[in-house]
Amino acid sequence: MYYLGLDVGGTTIKAGLVDETNNVLEARKTPTVVDDLNGFISKLTELIRHFQKSAAIDAVGIGVPGLRSSRTGVIQTSPHIPCLKNVNLDDAVSDEVHLKVISENDANAGAYAESICGAGKGLHHLAYLTLGTGLGSGLVLNGSLYMGASGYGGEFGHTVIDPGGRLCACGKRGCVETVASATGIVTTAMEKLKAGGSSLLRELPPPLTSEEIYESAVSGDAIAREVFMETGRWLGIACANLINLLNPEAIIIGGGVMASGELLLGHAADIARQYAFPPSFNDCRIVQSKLWPDAGMIGAALLARDR
Amino acid sequence: MYYLGLDVGGTTIKAGLVDETNNVLEARKTPTVVDDLNGFISKLTELIRHFQKSAAIDAVGIGVPGLRSSRTGVIQTSPHIPCLKNVNLDDAVSDEVHLKVISENDANAGAYAESICGAGKGLHHLAYLTLGTGLGSGLVLNGSLYMGASGYGGEFGHTVIDPGGRLCACGKRGCVETVASATGIVTTAMEKLKAGGSSLLRELPPPLTSEEIYESAVSGDAIAREVFMETGRWLGIACANLINLLNPEAIIIGGGVMASGELLLGHAADIARQYAFPPSFNDCRIVQSKLWPDAGMIGAALLARDR
Repeated sequence: MYYLGLDVGGTTIKAGLVDETNNVLEARKTPTVVDDLNGFISKLTELIRHFQKSAAIDAVGIGVPGLRSSRTGVIQTSPHIPCLKNVNLDDAVSDEVHLKVISENDANAGAYAESICGAGKGLHHLAYLTLGTGLGSGLVLNGSLYMGASGYGGEFGHTVIDPGGRLCACGKRGCVETVASATGIVTTAMEKLKAGGSSLLRELPPPLTSEEIYESAVSGDAIAREVFMETGRWLGIACANLINLLNPEAIIIGGGVMASGELLLGHAADIARQYAFPPSFNDCRIVQSKLWPDAGMIGAALLARDR
Repeated sequence: MYYLGLDVGGTTIKAGLVDETNNVLEARKTPTVVDDLNGFISKLTELIRHFQKSAAIDAVGIGVPGLRSSRTGVIQTSPHIPCLKNVNLDDAVSDEVHLKVISENDANAGAYAESICGAGKGLHHLAYLTLGTGLGSGLVLNGSLYMGASGYGGEFGHTVIDPGGRLCACGKRGCVETVASATGIVTTAMEKLKAGGSSLLRELPPPLTSEEIYESAVSGDAIAREVFMETGRWLGIACANLINLLNPEAIIIGGGVMASGELLLGHAADIARQYAFPPSFNDCRIVQSKLWPDAGMIGAALLARDR
């Protein structure tokens, strides 16, 4: 039995053929079309048909950044893919490829994958955070992917942690993702550079990236290190909020920013320890994703299998 | 079949005899002993024995403000009742009264009651908040009382919403309960009075209470009204965080502060609408508790019945 997982990003769609033992046998990618629904669906169906040539696919799962109603199957809104507004993607794609197709929020799919075969394998309560341009998140609670009343659950990146803080892409101020994401890291660096002081970062051609800031931090640049300390502090407070509210066994962190690994996670864990109730903190590990960058793709395939 | 529910507060223990149809047949209360475990347990057993004289009690539930391990049954810590530290209250009380005894966090018990026979009857996903001296909270997710990995789940009052803000009783800064509670209301009023301006509140003998502030607000006192607007704003942001993370069908709010009813809730709902994702907000009602002040007591009895 083979399951195809698609992970739709703002710029790229990744697809992976997953077997019954959760292994990715083959993967490929294609650019995302974001503003034309027919074009967007064509990109998906081309990928699916490519894999259909070489394997008997049983079902297709699609991880999508956006809010999907579990009641109607309709994707309500997807900030990075504007053509996905009030679309039943499952039906639209299924009609083309004549396979069972299910879609799900991409971070939810990632959380599911981590709980089945990743850093949270065998755990019943976990939060999965993916720190990239934004902060995606999904929850596995009591052994099941947590959906909430209508499928919109798990949007931790858009909980407010700093009400007087930065404007978020969602239109609110002070969401967790404004401080704990690649975008947050760059903004923090820009703020610190504006405040003065010498830094390697000043010599880099714009735009500044979180990778460059990480490399400068590793090279010992004081301002870049401060940026990671501050980001780690925010991430730590955010983790403490999850720990006190949900008492999970693990918080699993993936995303591009996690290339910075322990520089961020170690400090975040120290701060979480200060902010969370000790018994709850002691029962929770804060660890890196094992499946990133493929967690969403694998999770989509596994959801197609298991739903 | 009769179940006895006890709700342990920092000053008073309430007990209620609950029948199979969730009705409270008889209730009484006694002062809490907070610093002597034997004295504390004696107060509980006296209450239980009183009810045993007139009814064949099948099980006793005890709602306790504190963290109880669902793995060991031990209450790890209870800030307001210092003698409850590393205590297996279930066993200690059961040994005395020879009945099945179960304890649970008081706000968790309240959440359970609201989901069975209160404002959340029949709902599968709800958060219950009780705004008193602090902010207690419990979650019902997927139709079950949410415990988390070790029974500590649901501590929403100790999630950070204002990191540079007020010192909390828990030792951290900026917890939700520092701004959305009776204590938060009084602190906000004191801050505003310090900043100047005429107010009825200046004429009241200290200490100021949240009830007095409410009454002054109703009488049209501008500063008292500002206090409620600001508290409603914080409560609204806090509700939006719950809505985005958990996508509940209802947030049910009880506690002494809710005597102020719509003055607080109406504004909180307006703010939550601004901060939450519209599809998630639209699927959630923010309503007053139906069972407060008895939610914890009834919930403890129902948990004793259902566990």
